[in-house]
Formats: sequence, C-alpha cells, structure tokens
Amino acid sequence: MAKTYAEMSKEELEQLYAQLDQEYKDAKGKGLALNMARGKPSPAQLDMGMGFLDAITSESDMHASDATDVRNYGVMDGLPEAKHLMADIMETLSSNVIVCGNASLNIMYDTFSRAFTHGLLGNTPWGKLDKVKFLCPAPGYDRHFAICEHFGIEMITVPMSPTGPDMDMVEKLVAEDEAIKGIWCVPKYSNPQGYTYSCETVRRFAALKPAAKDFRIFWDNAYAIHHLYDEESRQDRIPDIIAECKNAGNPDMVFEFASTSKVTFAGAGIAAIASSQANLDDMRKSMTVQTIGYDKINQLRHCRYFKDINGIKAHMKKHAALLRPKFEACERVLEKELNSTGIAEWTTPNGGYFISLDVMEGCAKRVVALCKDAGVTLTGAGATFPYKKDPKDSNIRIAPSYPTPDEMAQATDLLVLCVKLAAVEKLLNK
Amino acid sequence: MAKTYAEMSKEELEQLYAQLDQEYKDAKGKGLALNMARGKPSPAQLDMGMGFLDAITSESDMHASDATDVRNYGVMDGLPEAKHLMADIMETLSSNVIVCGNASLNIMYDTFSRAFTHGLLGNTPWGKLDKVKFLCPAPGYDRHFAICEHFGIEMITVPMSPTGPDMDMVEKLVAEDEAIKGIWCVPKYSNPQGYTYSCETVRRFAALKPAAKDFRIFWDNAYAIHHLYDEESRQDRIPDIIAECKNAGNPDMVFEFASTSKVTFAGAGIAAIASSQANLDDMRKSMTVQTIGYDKINQLRHCRYFKDINGIKAHMKKHAALLRPKFEACERVLEKELNSTGIAEWTTPNGGYFISLDVMEGCAKRVVALCKDAGVTLTGAGATFPYKKDPKDSNIRIAPSYPTPDEMAQATDLLVLCVKLAAVEKLLNK
Repeated sequence: MAKTYAEMSKEELEQLYAQLDQEYKDAKGKGLALNMARGKPSPAQLDMGMGFLDAITSESDMHASDATDVRNYGVMDGLPEAKHLMADIMETLSSNVIVCGNASLNIMYDTFSRAFTHGLLGNTPWGKLDKVKFLCPAPGYDRHFAICEHFGIEMITVPMSPTGPDMDMVEKLVAEDEAIKGIWCVPKYSNPQGYTYSCETVRRFAALKPAAKDFRIFWDNAYAIHHLYDEESRQDRIPDIIAECKNAGNPDMVFEFASTSKVTFAGAGIAAIASSQANLDDMRKSMTVQTIGYDKINQLRHCRYFKDINGIKAHMKKHAALLRPKFEACERVLEKELNSTGIAEWTTPNGGYFISLDVMEGCAKRVVALCKDAGVTLTGAGATFPYKKDPKDSNIRIAPSYPTPDEMAQATDLLVLCVKLAAVEKLLNK
Repeated sequence: MAKTYAEMSKEELEQLYAQLDQEYKDAKGKGLALNMARGKPSPAQLDMGMGFLDAITSESDMHASDATDVRNYGVMDGLPEAKHLMADIMETLSSNVIVCGNASLNIMYDTFSRAFTHGLLGNTPWGKLDKVKFLCPAPGYDRHFAICEHFGIEMITVPMSPTGPDMDMVEKLVAEDEAIKGIWCVPKYSNPQGYTYSCETVRRFAALKPAAKDFRIFWDNAYAIHHLYDEESRQDRIPDIIAECKNAGNPDMVFEFASTSKVTFAGAGIAAIASSQANLDDMRKSMTVQTIGYDKINQLRHCRYFKDINGIKAHMKKHAALLRPKFEACERVLEKELNSTGIAEWTTPNGGYFISLDVMEGCAKRVVALCKDAGVTLTGAGATFPYKKDPKDSNIRIAPSYPTPDEMAQATDLLVLCVKLAAVEKLLNK
C-alpha cells in the first residue's frame, strides 16, 4: 500500500513536488476553459426539455381546473393543479402550499424581508430588534448565507454530518437564545455535500423547543426529486417536515421551499412555499399588497406538460441519465488519484447538484487558485461557510452538472493535481 | 333646457323619486350580473393576443441577442432586447432600465421594502425613522395607497386636476417636510381619471427641491402606450421624466415603472423599472441577494412576438379597437342621462382603463350599494382615496374594459339610474 503524504520523508515530498509541478505546468499549457462554479444545468439537459415549450400554444384551452382564465388577473396564491404538483414534489398536502414566481430564492428573500418589516404572526419585526441570529449548518449554500449577511443577521456555524446538522448543538442553542430566529436547512441532497438528513434528524427538528416564539426552520427542499439513480434503494427519502412539526405541536415552526428551476428551465420554472395555515395566511396579508398574482400561464404550462408527479419523476430520470456519468467520472478520478494519499475526503451523493471535497487544511484557497490559473473555475473557497470564511480553509464545492462527462474527467484530473500540489507545498512549507 | 336637480321643487323631486324608484325596482328584476370593479382585460382582448404563445416553441433558437442561453441561470437585470423594448415603452434609454418579473406592482413593493430595510443610496432605512410620509394625489390608484398603508406610511392627499397634481402644494410640502419621502404618480391616463400630466407639471416634478435627500417620485407609467384612439392628436404624450430629472440636477429623484400586463396577458407579462445609474446600482445590490434572475424565456417571448416598439404599437391599436366602443358606450349614456342634471361630472379620457365619475357629495357609497343590489359591481366607493376615505363621498371609478359594449351600456344605464336615485334621496333627506 502506498504511503500517505503525511508518511513521506522530506526527500520523497521534494521529488513528488518536482513531478507535480511539472505536470501542473503541462496542464496549464492545455488551455482548458471549464466552469464548475455554479450548479447550472448543461445544454444537453436544457435541450432534453424543449417539449415543455409546446405545452401551451395559441390552440390551448387557457382555463385551469377551477375554470380560472389563466390569461387574466387573479388567483394570488397559485392554480389548484400547480399547488398539487408542487405539494407532490415536497411530499406534503396541497393545502399547505402557495405557488409563487420563478424562483424559490426570491420567496426566501421575501420571507426574510417580511419578517424584518412586519414580523411573523404578530411578533416584533426583526428589523426592530437589536440582534437577530441564525444558525447556519456549514458547509452550506452561499446564497442562504448571503441573505443573512444582507439583513445584518449574525450567523452561527453549526457543523454538518452525513445525517444532518449537529442536533445536540442546534437543540441547545435555540433553547437558550431568544435572538436565534431561524436555521437554514437543505434537508435532501444538501448543498454542497449531497447529504440527506436522517429521519431522526428531521424528527428532532420538528420537536425543537426554541426560546424565540418566531423561530423558523427554513427548509430549502431544492433537490426533493433530484435523484441521480433510478434504483429506489439509492433514492434518499425524508419525512414531510410540515406534518412532523404539526404532530410535534410546532405547526408554525417551518417554511419549506421548492422549485422547478432544475426540472424545466432555470429561471423559467415555478417556485412554491409550504407551511401551516397560520403562516400562509400571515404571508397572504403581505402578498395581497405585493402582487395581483404570479405567472399563471407558466404554472399551467408545467401542469399540462407533466400531467402529474409521475410525469415529473419520469422527466427527472432523463436529467439523472445526463448528470450521473459526470458525477461518476468525477468520483472515479477522485478515488483513483486521492484515495491513498490521506490528503482529501469527498462525498458520493445519491442526488443533488454537488460533490463536497475537503482538502488538506489550509489548502482550499490555494487549490481553487491553482485550478483557476490552469483554466478550471471552481466555486470560490470559503463560499460554503458564513461570511465566506472556512475556518479550516479546506472545503471545495464541485458542481459537475454543466461540463460534458469528458470535460468533467479533464477538469477533475486538473483538480486532483492541484489538490496534491497544494498539499505538498503545505507539507514542505513552500 | 331641463332643470338641474338642485333647481327642482320638493314636489318635482318627489315625483322624480317615485319614477326612479320604480325604474330601479324594474332594473333589479332584470337579474344583471356584471363586474366593473377592476381594470381587467376582456376575454376578447385575451383571445386577440393568443399568437403570443407561439412566439417561443421547441423549435426556437433559445439564445438572446447577446448569445445568452435564456433557458439557463444568469442575467439578473434583463435581456438586452427586453431592456430595449421596455425602454421604448417608457420612452427612455435602455441603459436606464432593469427588467424584472411579471408585475410592476411587485417591483414597487420591493422598492418600498428595500427602502425600509436598507435605505436608498446610503440614507437611513425608512424602517428606522419615527415617521415616513407620502404624498398621494387623489383620486388615485388603490394599490399604491395599500402599499403605503401596509408599511405604516402616513398618506397626505394632494388634489388632482386635468393637468396633474396640485403642484403648488407638492412643491411647498416636499420643501418643508423631511419626513415626506415620496409621491405616487400615474402620469399618463391616470387611474382613475385618465388625465395626462402637462409638460409643465412634469418639469415642475423634475425640478422639485425636496427637504429629504431620499425623496423619490414613484412614476407609475402603467398606461404609457394604452391609447384609445389611433389619431395622433388624441394620443397623449409626456416628456421622459428620467431625462427631465437629470437635466434639472435631480438624477436620482425618480423611479419609473411599466409592464406589459395589459399588452400581452395580465400576470404573464414582463415588468420593468427605470431610474438613474446610481439608483439601479443600489437596487442591484439587493437584487443579487434576492434572485438569480427573472424569467428570461418570457422576456424573449415578448421580444420575438413584437419585434420592436412598432409591433407593440400595432398590437395596442387592436386593444384600443376593443376598448374604445365600451368607453364610448359608457360616455354616451352618461352624457345623455346626466348632462343636464347638475348632479355628476365625469372624465372622457384618451386612454387608460378607467373613467372617473364624481356624483353628488355624500352619494358615492349609496350609488355603489344600489348598483351592487341590482347586479352591477363597481370598485368600492372611497377606494380611490388614501385610507379608502373619500372626504366628499363623491368619486366612483368606472372600469369599462371587462364587459362587452352591450353589457357596458346596460351597466351604465343602471349606474346613471342609481346616481339619480341617490341624488334625489339626498335632496329629499330620505
């Protein structure tokens, strides 16, 4: 068995460094230009979904199931069939759902904004409080953290594990500190690890006893149906958090979000929020001032194209068929090149859009910079932590979706080279 | 010449009352069921625009003029051609424009919300101030007033005239009171009168000298291209407020809004904001946290269908051809039945979606109630004033767009009957 880098002598490391440095110089000469920075669908995925655009034409009946003319004003909170479809994606009841515009991020932002200006369920608006804090399981999604930062919310990092956030810490903190008003969660195929919360984690969330009456779990179920494998045994599942919270006596404690951004077209999908009746009614009070209604034609376009959740699931298998080879290409290279080195760990998710790679402490920024100089753009190191500060400078998010499988293999070849080079540099104090 | 109601003797009025009361009882028996409450396009207008839905199909090239793949993430502030189209509607430069989602109301709300949580151009967030006031020309648009009310902003009513708001009052108030942070304007074909601000009014707006550094004109150009007549002499025009403010040394003083809600489909249009570079950059700082981007496919759908502003103008003539007969049917009945009575005044706009009717003081609520009891729903009396309180209880907004011309004539027949009945009741103290 090969030595790990830590076990190598200085001479062995120097020799390795010379070899890696040469390989890196060669790689730079190849003129790569690949972008793995964001979880963007690939052109092949987008081409695959073009039929969606023919679901509504000038010949279509433009009436929804409740006889609403979708071309006119009205229906603020979503067509019945759109609520049903989004509820099925989230595996909750359609009566818990409001369907909004094209992006769940916008609903999340608006929910924060509303909490700041008007407060939640009659509680003091967050904007009137001296201090508002949020728990942020990390590594996590940079755009969640950006919302907190934008509103001046103090973020408290909570460590992540393969079964979800450190629940002992979550339970203790929310029970002790009334200033903690919420927590960000990506419960299934988490961004960036692809972890799925265990049933126990979900139930402990539902049973939280927060000091703040207006504490809310922001449950971003972004990858609810984004499996990479067709076998049910490799499709992760989580309980319905809305039902769990209700059963635990905390019906108003959660806002759940989902969208079809990575189902139909990014930016031209539909997005939804699910919560208790009290929370939805509270939200409707603001919505009725904010909008006459969202794009019902696009809601109907989704319902006509997919018919029902089975249509969506069949469609998601086509996405999976395009995504899977890229994840596997990446994982193969990581396994082959880094497995015996002792300098990196990574996840092998069953779904979602990302692989999380932990390199040697203090090396993530260097790896990202080395990759960038050789033509491969990764998500900025640190982006997966609050304030963009990874305390160990170790985590890198890999987004395999956009490149082709060949490009993905090439990009990962470069990535592992940079991971090794940065580690040897570090060990040699170069 | 017939006597006005005020000139009639008690006996004449009693006789008239008996006759009107009988007519009203007969009218109630007809079982009318018409809704003129909101400015909704009619089914005929919606049918006329169905071709729009074929502008993007599975066969379409999905790239914008700058090669953006509109099916993927990105382009937060609008496609170049969509900016151009919306700029042409507002008769301003496309560099002044950000294109957003499906509704300008939502942009207005978000602009308020941002001012409350983050402040405008570095000024104190409105939410941190003890008092925020807004000028509200009235009669005006109820949804504007609803935004102010929702955010706890004190509304100050400014009288409207055929050339716009009382500018002497506006100039005086904004110069004196730093708590006044803005004014609502519908500068062309105003809601509900259909008045268009004179050039002098627009220039006086641009030259305002407000005490508040973050005073903003909310210029809701909702009916920019919504003419009722094809003759240019009957098409109202206003100067570009963005350019006027810049020339007057107040480049950051205005936010302009427009949408295609009443061009293509209500709720499935695109909406835009126009302002100075400083204001747009300020807005982008929040937008980049709030959204990855709006629906670019729908933006492209608009650009492909209309080609350019001339395509839109041709389309608006078709809308006008459907709307004009309804406005004229209404105006004919008002003229014939009320002209010599001295109990009502009304507007005869060249565009927009409304006619404003002022009935005898103290009678508007009664007229709306009488109409409702006989099957014709009007916008609630008072809705056109801040806090829904019309100090004279006189103004009624007529929305002729939704009914057919025949229905419109029938509805106006009932309306004038109720206007007369309420007036006689009032004069007789019944």
